[in-house]
Amino acid sequence: MLRLAPPGFQRFVQARSFDVIYGGGEANVAVSLANFGIPVDFITRLPANDVGDACLQFIRQYGVNVDHIMRGGERLGIYFLEMGASTRGSKVIYDRANSAISTAKVGMFDWETIFNDVKWFHFTGITPAISQNLADLCLEAVKVAKKKNLTISADLNYRSKLWKYGKKPSEIMSELVKYCDVAIGNEEDAEKVFGIKAPETDVTSGKLDPEKYKHVCENLMKIFPNLKKVAITLRGSLSASHNTWSAVLYDGNKLYMAPQYDITHMVDRVGGGDSFCAGLIYGLLTYKDDYQSALNFATAASCLKHTIIGDFNLVSVEEVLSIMGGDTSGRVSR
Amino acid sequence: MLRLAPPGFQRFVQARSFDVIYGGGEANVAVSLANFGIPVDFITRLPANDVGDACLQFIRQYGVNVDHIMRGGERLGIYFLEMGASTRGSKVIYDRANSAISTAKVGMFDWETIFNDVKWFHFTGITPAISQNLADLCLEAVKVAKKKNLTISADLNYRSKLWKYGKKPSEIMSELVKYCDVAIGNEEDAEKVFGIKAPETDVTSGKLDPEKYKHVCENLMKIFPNLKKVAITLRGSLSASHNTWSAVLYDGNKLYMAPQYDITHMVDRVGGGDSFCAGLIYGLLTYKDDYQSALNFATAASCLKHTIIGDFNLVSVEEVLSIMGGDTSGRVSR
Amino acid sequence: MLRLAPPGFQRFVQARSFDVIYGGGEANVAVSLANFGIPVDFITRLPANDVGDACLQFIRQYGVNVDHIMRGGERLGIYFLEMGASTRGSKVIYDRANSAISTAKVGMFDWETIFNDVKWFHFTGITPAISQNLADLCLEAVKVAKKKNLTISADLNYRSKLWKYGKKPSEIMSELVKYCDVAIGNEEDAEKVFGIKAPETDVTSGKLDPEKYKHVCENLMKIFPNLKKVAITLRGSLSASHNTWSAVLYDGNKLYMAPQYDITHMVDRVGGGDSFCAGLIYGLLTYKDDYQSALNFATAASCLKHTIIGDFNLVSVEEVLSIMGGDTSGRVSR
Amino acid sequence: MLRLAPPGFQRFVQARSFDVIYGGGEANVAVSLANFGIPVDFITRLPANDVGDACLQFIRQYGVNVDHIMRGGERLGIYFLEMGASTRGSKVIYDRANSAISTAKVGMFDWETIFNDVKWFHFTGITPAISQNLADLCLEAVKVAKKKNLTISADLNYRSKLWKYGKKPSEIMSELVKYCDVAIGNEEDAEKVFGIKAPETDVTSGKLDPEKYKHVCENLMKIFPNLKKVAITLRGSLSASHNTWSAVLYDGNKLYMAPQYDITHMVDRVGGGDSFCAGLIYGLLTYKDDYQSALNFATAASCLKHTIIGDFNLVSVEEVLSIMGGDTSGRVSR
Amino acid sequence: MLRLAPPGFQRFVQARSFDVIYGGGEANVAVSLANFGIPVDFITRLPANDVGDACLQFIRQYGVNVDHIMRGGERLGIYFLEMGASTRGSKVIYDRANSAISTAKVGMFDWETIFNDVKWFHFTGITPAISQNLADLCLEAVKVAKKKNLTISADLNYRSKLWKYGKKPSEIMSELVKYCDVAIGNEEDAEKVFGIKAPETDVTSGKLDPEKYKHVCENLMKIFPNLKKVAITLRGSLSASHNTWSAVLYDGNKLYMAPQYDITHMVDRVGGGDSFCAGLIYGLLTYKDDYQSALNFATAASCLKHTIIGDFNLVSVEEVLSIMGGDTSGRVSR
Amino acid sequence: MLRLAPPGFQRFVQARSFDVIYGGGEANVAVSLANFGIPVDFITRLPANDVGDACLQFIRQYGVNVDHIMRGGERLGIYFLEMGASTRGSKVIYDRANSAISTAKVGMFDWETIFNDVKWFHFTGITPAISQNLADLCLEAVKVAKKKNLTISADLNYRSKLWKYGKKPSEIMSELVKYCDVAIGNEEDAEKVFGIKAPETDVTSGKLDPEKYKHVCENLMKIFPNLKKVAITLRGSLSASHNTWSAVLYDGNKLYMAPQYDITHMVDRVGGGDSFCAGLIYGLLTYKDDYQSALNFATAASCLKHTIIGDFNLVSVEEVLSIMGGDTSGRVSR
Repeated sequence: MLRLAPPGFQRFVQARSFDVIYGGGEANVAVSLANFGIPVDFITRLPANDVGDACLQFIRQYGVNVDHIMRGGERLGIYFLEMGASTRGSKVIYDRANSAISTAKVGMFDWETIFNDVKWFHFTGITPAISQNLADLCLEAVKVAKKKNLTISADLNYRSKLWKYGKKPSEIMSELVKYCDVAIGNEEDAEKVFGIKAPETDVTSGKLDPEKYKHVCENLMKIFPNLKKVAITLRGSLSASHNTWSAVLYDGNKLYMAPQYDITHMVDRVGGGDSFCAGLIYGLLTYKDDYQSALNFATAASCLKHTIIGDFNLVSVEEVLSIMGGDTSGRVSR
Repeated sequence: MLRLAPPGFQRFVQARSFDVIYGGGEANVAVSLANFGIPVDFITRLPANDVGDACLQFIRQYGVNVDHIMRGGERLGIYFLEMGASTRGSKVIYDRANSAISTAKVGMFDWETIFNDVKWFHFTGITPAISQNLADLCLEAVKVAKKKNLTISADLNYRSKLWKYGKKPSEIMSELVKYCDVAIGNEEDAEKVFGIKAPETDVTSGKLDPEKYKHVCENLMKIFPNLKKVAITLRGSLSASHNTWSAVLYDGNKLYMAPQYDITHMVDRVGGGDSFCAGLIYGLLTYKDDYQSALNFATAASCLKHTIIGDFNLVSVEEVLSIMGGDTSGRVSR
Repeated sequence: MLRLAPPGFQRFVQARSFDVIYGGGEANVAVSLANFGIPVDFITRLPANDVGDACLQFIRQYGVNVDHIMRGGERLGIYFLEMGASTRGSKVIYDRANSAISTAKVGMFDWETIFNDVKWFHFTGITPAISQNLADLCLEAVKVAKKKNLTISADLNYRSKLWKYGKKPSEIMSELVKYCDVAIGNEEDAEKVFGIKAPETDVTSGKLDPEKYKHVCENLMKIFPNLKKVAITLRGSLSASHNTWSAVLYDGNKLYMAPQYDITHMVDRVGGGDSFCAGLIYGLLTYKDDYQSALNFATAASCLKHTIIGDFNLVSVEEVLSIMGGDTSGRVSR
Repeated sequence: MLRLAPPGFQRFVQARSFDVIYGGGEANVAVSLANFGIPVDFITRLPANDVGDACLQFIRQYGVNVDHIMRGGERLGIYFLEMGASTRGSKVIYDRANSAISTAKVGMFDWETIFNDVKWFHFTGITPAISQNLADLCLEAVKVAKKKNLTISADLNYRSKLWKYGKKPSEIMSELVKYCDVAIGNEEDAEKVFGIKAPETDVTSGKLDPEKYKHVCENLMKIFPNLKKVAITLRGSLSASHNTWSAVLYDGNKLYMAPQYDITHMVDRVGGGDSFCAGLIYGLLTYKDDYQSALNFATAASCLKHTIIGDFNLVSVEEVLSIMGGDTSGRVSR
Repeated sequence: MLRLAPPGFQRFVQARSFDVIYGGGEANVAVSLANFGIPVDFITRLPANDVGDACLQFIRQYGVNVDHIMRGGERLGIYFLEMGASTRGSKVIYDRANSAISTAKVGMFDWETIFNDVKWFHFTGITPAISQNLADLCLEAVKVAKKKNLTISADLNYRSKLWKYGKKPSEIMSELVKYCDVAIGNEEDAEKVFGIKAPETDVTSGKLDPEKYKHVCENLMKIFPNLKKVAITLRGSLSASHNTWSAVLYDGNKLYMAPQYDITHMVDRVGGGDSFCAGLIYGLLTYKDDYQSALNFATAASCLKHTIIGDFNLVSVEEVLSIMGGDTSGRVSR
Repeated sequence: MLRLAPPGFQRFVQARSFDVIYGGGEANVAVSLANFGIPVDFITRLPANDVGDACLQFIRQYGVNVDHIMRGGERLGIYFLEMGASTRGSKVIYDRANSAISTAKVGMFDWETIFNDVKWFHFTGITPAISQNLADLCLEAVKVAKKKNLTISADLNYRSKLWKYGKKPSEIMSELVKYCDVAIGNEEDAEKVFGIKAPETDVTSGKLDPEKYKHVCENLMKIFPNLKKVAITLRGSLSASHNTWSAVLYDGNKLYMAPQYDITHMVDRVGGGDSFCAGLIYGLLTYKDDYQSALNFATAASCLKHTIIGDFNLVSVEEVLSIMGGDTSGRVSR
């Protein structure tokens, strides 16, 4: 997607220019993994015009393989982002109807080839929420992925303004999550998508009680016994400039809790969840059975994301390890 | 429409920001007339979101009345503009499918009220080219305008990439031009819309032989005897930075020729035709039967447009008169 | 006025460009009310040059009626603003001697016509502080406003660097406030203008004891029994980036207290008082006898102002209502 | 003065920022001489605030001695500059009434000390045009300069919008030029100030007949027999982006003619005349009796000025010599 | 290399920011070829720090394979570029001593692997001019390339400020050109490197007599009988904003001449020669024995380069073909 | 040095422009003192090119005397600065090998003349860390300074990435500090340079126990009995956006403690230590035996530095006194 944002803290009506960045759910995960040194392919469809070229080149610069991106369709999806501050929240206006990817169809992508020598497939709940086409395409992909023994992870990522094509999220997502090994969500996703409610969550208070999320994880695993891990990110919204950030990981047995980070002076929180997914994939691939480290890596990585402009988490493994090791002092590295 | 343009001479792939301007055919004419001190209403439909607000406020600042603009629909139409230089031409990518105005319908606008105490109605051929809805809406408008005795002008403005909804330009435009008093076009419009060809036009040479355009005007008036005036703008494209600019006006009797301007160091040629239309409307309203002056005003006004960034011709009557009087020396006004 | 501000946190000596915004006391109130959907006229005098045009158009874009603005005089008043941060306060340098409005004279404005079908007249103490001309003009306006039964509100807005033409603030302001229904001030205004001191105010501490402001309100009403309401804004200055913000409203009987907002990461506090005035006018017009809601709306609106660049409070009623309802979590609105 | 200019080719009404540069007649000459390695003092009065500081520091960076600049007064003079292009000329709006220098008074500057060990004093006709105060101050300065045997040069620099304090330019300037050794003007100055008309000058044609300016020089020397040299700059205005540039120098005997430069793609012509003055002072100091070289240096230097943003001619002697030697090919220097 | 350029036409002393672009001889050729759809590898050495990362990612975005770039060494080479205009030429200051590539050594690159399945190897005369190390490295590369039957092309690219390590250009370049199939140079290279002088070249006049370059080509082929083709670019420098551009190609038999382009309003001429090399390589690969077309493609491609900001020629084959077909009218492509 | 920093919070790989500022240890101290009205000379060596000119002019604008700066050498040292935020620290990449100053030699500067009528000489530990040349040059300077009875201060300023030429910091610095009257360092310098460790310092905690630094001061004075004062700055790093700041001063007898400042919303902490040195020099010169005031001035001055963009502390004595007097409320100064 093309992200158009007024510079600084300008409101839309004040802007005489928009900062241009390309990004979006799965692209964000791909770039973050590439930054961690993981070979990664990004699969999407972009219009065969200069705006599509610009998007492709933007993603390619970070080392993501773009060879399987299809070109065609009418337009690149757009989102407008107005950055909030203090008591004024950020504002997102989506303009992605009829985007090249939304009109992609089953059969367009050669998943068999794409998944050759691939270990992991990740998708987000935004994709099947856009159109029936995309829901079908997702299902096609997860089936091939499953057949070829890839680990499959899904970011539930519920967005109320999507899901307009007549199906309920629960209906579509159930079909997809059945094939998944790892499910990731924020505090609201499980409730909004599958009706699993964590008791007493007050997202505006800044206070978090992670234990109660065990309840969510367990219930999710009950519905989807195929799931081997469930992770939940925990954001405390004190203001548009100040959040707390943590996460839990459940392996069916034990709930692992990450440390909670206090993120004052946030630079850009868009893509926070995606950076967590990338961190968790990296963590599970790297730390293997050490789930606590995998979770801690994911949480530290996504903590850092909040200091980076744009959707992408442009940080290195070394930088994440330093945060993970406890140094959030922000000292100058000379 | 929202116009997104890389700053300076950057290509799309280089841009990390887009300059933001709102404009488009009829809006350009409206703002130009408002700058000339003519009370003017702009009629369109804008989405009921912050991007729509920003567009409305952008137009309102120049004194155009926006009270009859409808709010609703999905999105604001967008066009991407890459500014050319020297031998590299500018590039426009349209992204306006499903814009709020394109889905407007007959009956949405109360033309009877809108046209109260109004003398002139102007539309461009871009509007009916977008969708059947808009063609019907245009027809609805010109019929009421005719009934209420407004002068009606049409800028033929043929765009090959539009007209995708199954109708031919000639078919739709004939229906509309039948109600018009004034038709305006560039060297190619009459040919592309109605098949009226001027012999031997070479638009890349910079040399112009205006007399041959009399042929075009006469033939147009034969088809549409209702037309009282036909004007043709004459652009000589020497390079993306250097054009010549002139125009002719035919009143059924006599062909009036404007002086030819040599426009080196062009700043922005988008909206050149619209600024001519506004200049001609102003000229005909002001100079009445002095058609030569009306034409000269229109040509001088649109010559100046090429020095203004954006779609709008932000110049005053005094500035046009100075050019019209022959001073193109560009001396500093202190 | 033309506001010229170095970008970001640059000092004046570092700036190679100034951000350009037009604003000023009454204009700020007018634009804020227009944003709330209230029809509003802004009355001033602007020079008949391009800088004056730019100011007029800047204000007009937000929907304020500018038809009664006079053109003439020598220049537009200017203020230079250096934005502070942390322990370094913002710095304002005024350059408004001989501005077009400062040389306006009694008789120039046709108040009878201007006030036709108008309900409310608002002015600030800055205007009569500039010149005897303006003090006289203000008096002329309030007298006509009174005669025509408008509600009249005054923002006391004491500025020590003004009041240089030989009269004391108390002398001039007493004459004007006698005609007012609503008086608004900050913690220092009542003392600086009328010598009414609130005991033990420490504006640098961040701690506020609103009850003591009842004393100020009561005393103000004693001097001006015509006043029906007195409002005081309460700012706690912890640093240039972190303030607290609240207000009280007194109706002669009861002191209403607004919640106190903690505004960290302030974007721009200029115009905070003006946005309160606009919020209070909107609140009193909308909530009528529900003074608590009127005050809460005003306080929430002006809290939001601190997150907006420029003098104008570019927020909607919906956004204020959300803050007023207690959600200052700054979550992303998608 | 503070120069405020919309970036690029924006019109005033479009600008949301102004580029900031400090400059003005005599300052421009001073900085240019400092760039040529000539020790130079700039004498003016600046307000004792941060804007005055910024101006002083801006000038100081280029190596001009600012120790004799007085601080005080109300404000720094401002001019707004809208850069023209092609057929649209640049536009200047002055806002310098009541500037710190305009209210300077006779006796404020210790000319005896200032002129110690100084060889040359230069002033422009803008200064005495501002106020009677400044005319008196100029006269005071030239008298002391004369007494101390400095060479005195005056740039006539007629500006029609100044001279508003009741005296005629001829009256005041005659008094001052009586003390001068060198007079410099453009094609119109001699006529506008002293009524000496060059026959048939058409400044918009681009064609120049320098010989006829001999007539002007001779007549000027008749009125002011003290003048040892008269120089006239010759600008041909083809468009706002394309000028020709040349000059003549008369020594009472012989008219020296500089080559004519064709300046296409002009960057900024403001300060062109000032850069010629600085070049001529440098030339006369350096080439002594070789007046042709002095003139050629001045013309080449001021030709280069048209390629530099801002009022100052930031070029070195080496760069001028290269142009003077005939290389205007603009090749890359690596 | 890191290119640092003041924005617009600012001089170095005026700049408060530098535009950042990464480029340099061979990189420019590589990116241009990638834009034409040719698979291409760029071989260099970059420091293992964030600046090196930024350079690598900048190049990678355009689709150049960067897998063989070595990381190590002290620093990235820098050049400062001040953009000229009109009579003022651009200025380049090199700061590349001790760059990572300059300290690369023979044996560091595995040429056998790098050249697997590769058809063409291109280098420029800048590389061996930097250090003995690099001259040795170049020789190592051309020897392997020859052995593996790659076509080898060399851009002579003489830079007088390099060649400081004690060897003469003729000495080193002779050793290298002996292995080449194609030699490319501008009007001065053959003379400066091998002493082959074209009679009467006046590079500042804008007038070109290409035939005389046949003499240069023939003589070059006499010295290096291995050369199968020699191409010479022909630049006429009318001003920093206006050049003419053409080229000749000699195949040992016949001199092919390209059309001459008149490039007014140049945007950026840096990399012009490199874009010609890329165009010629593409042309010879694509048009095979049709040398005229190969030359015309190269010349048209490099003509377009002068309209693109930065060192890279970011144009497509389609855009080149349009220029090559004769359309330099710069019309808007909608 | 030339400082190149991506704008805002961009990472290096995102930047398409770098903000340009010139600065560096001793220059920062010099400019700060000049801002306090102290006549000051800056001694260094700059390359004789436009980049060197730009650096010199940048420093000169603030009133520092640059007459003794030598011109010559290869290049200007560069450092790249990526500004951190929240949990992400700033990053500095040095590129200063072979800078003009690093290759300066003993005998190049005429210290006898430079130190005429001078009271104080200050240097930092960065200079002798760069090269043996510079260590020798420093020693040469301090010897002459001592002979001529200047007060000599040294900022220990240990940088681990320097000191690569084979000598240990302790070895070189001991030789130099023997001549000093005042030594200044941060919490780590004494340990890193001379092995004097303060017990239990946890620089990431934000909690400070200044008394323990007495131990450091006493031990430093034991080694260097010539020292009359030792000052230590105390930074608590809570995050990249939030630090605490304080300092102690020891006179051999008594430890003076400054108040601790809480600096949230930091703008730029680079040059914080240098601004403390300048403040202390000013303080000791101004407050003489009132060491508490001298220390408080230094601490308040350097507290303010954290709100200023760039290396230089562009604040006035009045602004420091206001902070020193306890007003850190950041109120608007109108």
